[in-house]
Amino acid sequence: MRQSFLFTKTRREAPKDETAKNAQLLIRAGFIHKEMAGVYSYLPLGLRVLNKISDIIREEMNAIGGQEIQMSLLQDRELWEKTGRWDDKLVDNWFKTKLKNGSDLGLALTNEEPVTNILREHIQSHKDLPKSVYQINTKFRNEVRAKAGVMRGREFPMKDLYSFNKDEKSHIEFYEKVSTSYERIFERVGISDRTVKTFASGGIFSKFSHEFQTICETGEDVIYTYTDERTGKLGAINKEIFTDDLKKELMVDNFIEKKSVEVGNIFTLGTRFSESLGLRYKDENGESVPVFMGSYGIGPSRLMGTVVEVLSDEKGIVWPESVAPFTIHLLSLDAETKGEADALYEKLVQEGKEVLYDDRDVAAGEKFADADLIGIPTRYVISKKSLSTGGIEVKDRKTGAIKYA
Amino acid sequence: MRQSFLFTKTRREAPKDETAKNAQLLIRAGFIHKEMAGVYSYLPLGLRVLNKISDIIREEMNAIGGQEIQMSLLQDRELWEKTGRWDDKLVDNWFKTKLKNGSDLGLALTNEEPVTNILREHIQSHKDLPKSVYQINTKFRNEVRAKAGVMRGREFPMKDLYSFNKDEKSHIEFYEKVSTSYERIFERVGISDRTVKTFASGGIFSKFSHEFQTICETGEDVIYTYTDERTGKLGAINKEIFTDDLKKELMVDNFIEKKSVEVGNIFTLGTRFSESLGLRYKDENGESVPVFMGSYGIGPSRLMGTVVEVLSDEKGIVWPESVAPFTIHLLSLDAETKGEADALYEKLVQEGKEVLYDDRDVAAGEKFADADLIGIPTRYVISKKSLSTGGIEVKDRKTGAIKYA
Repeated sequence: MRQSFLFTKTRREAPKDETAKNAQLLIRAGFIHKEMAGVYSYLPLGLRVLNKISDIIREEMNAIGGQEIQMSLLQDRELWEKTGRWDDKLVDNWFKTKLKNGSDLGLALTNEEPVTNILREHIQSHKDLPKSVYQINTKFRNEVRAKAGVMRGREFPMKDLYSFNKDEKSHIEFYEKVSTSYERIFERVGISDRTVKTFASGGIFSKFSHEFQTICETGEDVIYTYTDERTGKLGAINKEIFTDDLKKELMVDNFIEKKSVEVGNIFTLGTRFSESLGLRYKDENGESVPVFMGSYGIGPSRLMGTVVEVLSDEKGIVWPESVAPFTIHLLSLDAETKGEADALYEKLVQEGKEVLYDDRDVAAGEKFADADLIGIPTRYVISKKSLSTGGIEVKDRKTGAIKYA
Repeated sequence: MRQSFLFTKTRREAPKDETAKNAQLLIRAGFIHKEMAGVYSYLPLGLRVLNKISDIIREEMNAIGGQEIQMSLLQDRELWEKTGRWDDKLVDNWFKTKLKNGSDLGLALTNEEPVTNILREHIQSHKDLPKSVYQINTKFRNEVRAKAGVMRGREFPMKDLYSFNKDEKSHIEFYEKVSTSYERIFERVGISDRTVKTFASGGIFSKFSHEFQTICETGEDVIYTYTDERTGKLGAINKEIFTDDLKKELMVDNFIEKKSVEVGNIFTLGTRFSESLGLRYKDENGESVPVFMGSYGIGPSRLMGTVVEVLSDEKGIVWPESVAPFTIHLLSLDAETKGEADALYEKLVQEGKEVLYDDRDVAAGEKFADADLIGIPTRYVISKKSLSTGGIEVKDRKTGAIKYA
């Protein structure tokens, strides 16, 4: 894409009310627009990143047999009353609205109730199980405070996967598959070196759930990390369940307190929702049995914010290639060599490369500063100087290393 | 995809409260789930169709220079107050909600206000124009009645494009481009033979807007069609502006009244929003001038519903290949030839074909009925009978023509 075509511009300052580093950088670089605290619109560069993250998640969900759907954002009060989660006293971050006839509706906060209700029409027999279903869709959370930029929004995209199994045993097998799938996602997005699978509070059906926590100075969670003696892998416990009993159970003494951001969670629901909403199947003996469920979340925009938060430097954002809006940022610095730059742009596009081409009529210094801020992994510069020195100057955004090609 | 893997099942009857043919068929075939009147969730087959329609629209929008973004669904009351559109007395189909602190928010009904506000931060000079920006995102309309299935939802996806030009002249050029682009979209989706560009009411800045109306017995609009003597093309006037003055202006006497559904609209906004919200640019002489705007909508789910409504037959849905969930429906009818069917499925998938493979252990009659209901364009049957007759039986869903391959 030619940068002269792109409608967004970079800016020197973020809005004064924006305190989160991720949002400051994303706003300054023209990736997002702040609508209000915790609510952002995604501009062309930001949407490209969000789509790349979503596509990685989608590939991994499909690979473990997830079937993609898209549930409505308006939700029926009745369903939530059946599971006892409609009342604001119990779930305190609902957004609610009303139909013209006065009926109350909820705005998608999470989707256990609606997805269980949908599956009720399609699952009757043990032959229909196991199944897993996911969507990547907007969620709304009426947070009192929203100061973490796109890491904690009042409105945000979420991948929510739900699993339906015959029993706890087959559920646990799938739960482990999701865990491995999540590890692949964080690896592909470029944050696996600082992301740790963490014990968190469970529910009625299991002692623990698991969160994937990315260690990050500005994270809102606190975890205690440790090294698992048997596997040598890093593990962690969320502060909310960091008890002496658990420490004993893990047979670990040395923990390090870290701030972190929760980038994913996997949760055993058991039969809580299938019992309340009547999602049952006939087993091999003709007995009616409630389906055993799990739910699994990852927020693409939170991942985007986390990547910015942990990988940026003093000059701007540093995108991993897998989620960068473009992989090459081509800068043309002077009118005399514009022809060479134009030709290279056409050639790269022909080769299927994703190139942002800074063909604007602005000073070289501004182009360099913008390229650093926008954070595309590889910068190509064509100028009289580069051509006389060695050809195209190729600079790695992360390391700063320069070579000529 | 193997049909035994797919979690959805077909059903004989649609819900009793569902009166629209499009939704009845889509529910029975397992494409959608009805959450409440006018609110549907999209199941795997339905989401595939919706994505194909959205991708066609996206390609055509990109081809005319549209830049894709994604705006928030929660909208700021203040913006709408500036243009005088917040009040329920003026705009009667808002869904509204509240932040915890009591502030009112709107749910995206349309996006002129937010998009104008975003562009305000990126357009300063005549050199920044023209630009056009679009999204494919959820819209909410608090309709009193919602009886047309996915053709008129209370929540639905919408492609909304907004254009920003220096003046009316360059706006009109772009407006015509969009019109041609829309014709290509309806052609690709398979309804161009019954879709007609229709005069509709304009606004402050132009006498008329244009709608694209698909002639359809169950449509909620009424249009008067005529043949343009000069071009020989079919034209139409929406009933709401079908006056003697306009008839005289067009110099046409013969009109035919038709029911129709509005599948797209293109609208000149002029400077109504840019004046109210302060989206101005400096022209060549340094004068501050309001940007001249247009807005252009197409609803992917409404298109989906319209395709079902106008192209289905008594046996079920008939998808055009361009938007079908899969292009081939392979049916294996007996255990003895399952090996051949499995092998063909693998071969077709290897070739990059999109195949739904009915590998279920159910009677042939049920498979035939389901295939007709689901409506995939080409049906392949492998059975002892087909192999002894001529090989793979290939049936065209639309014409019923059979051949062997």
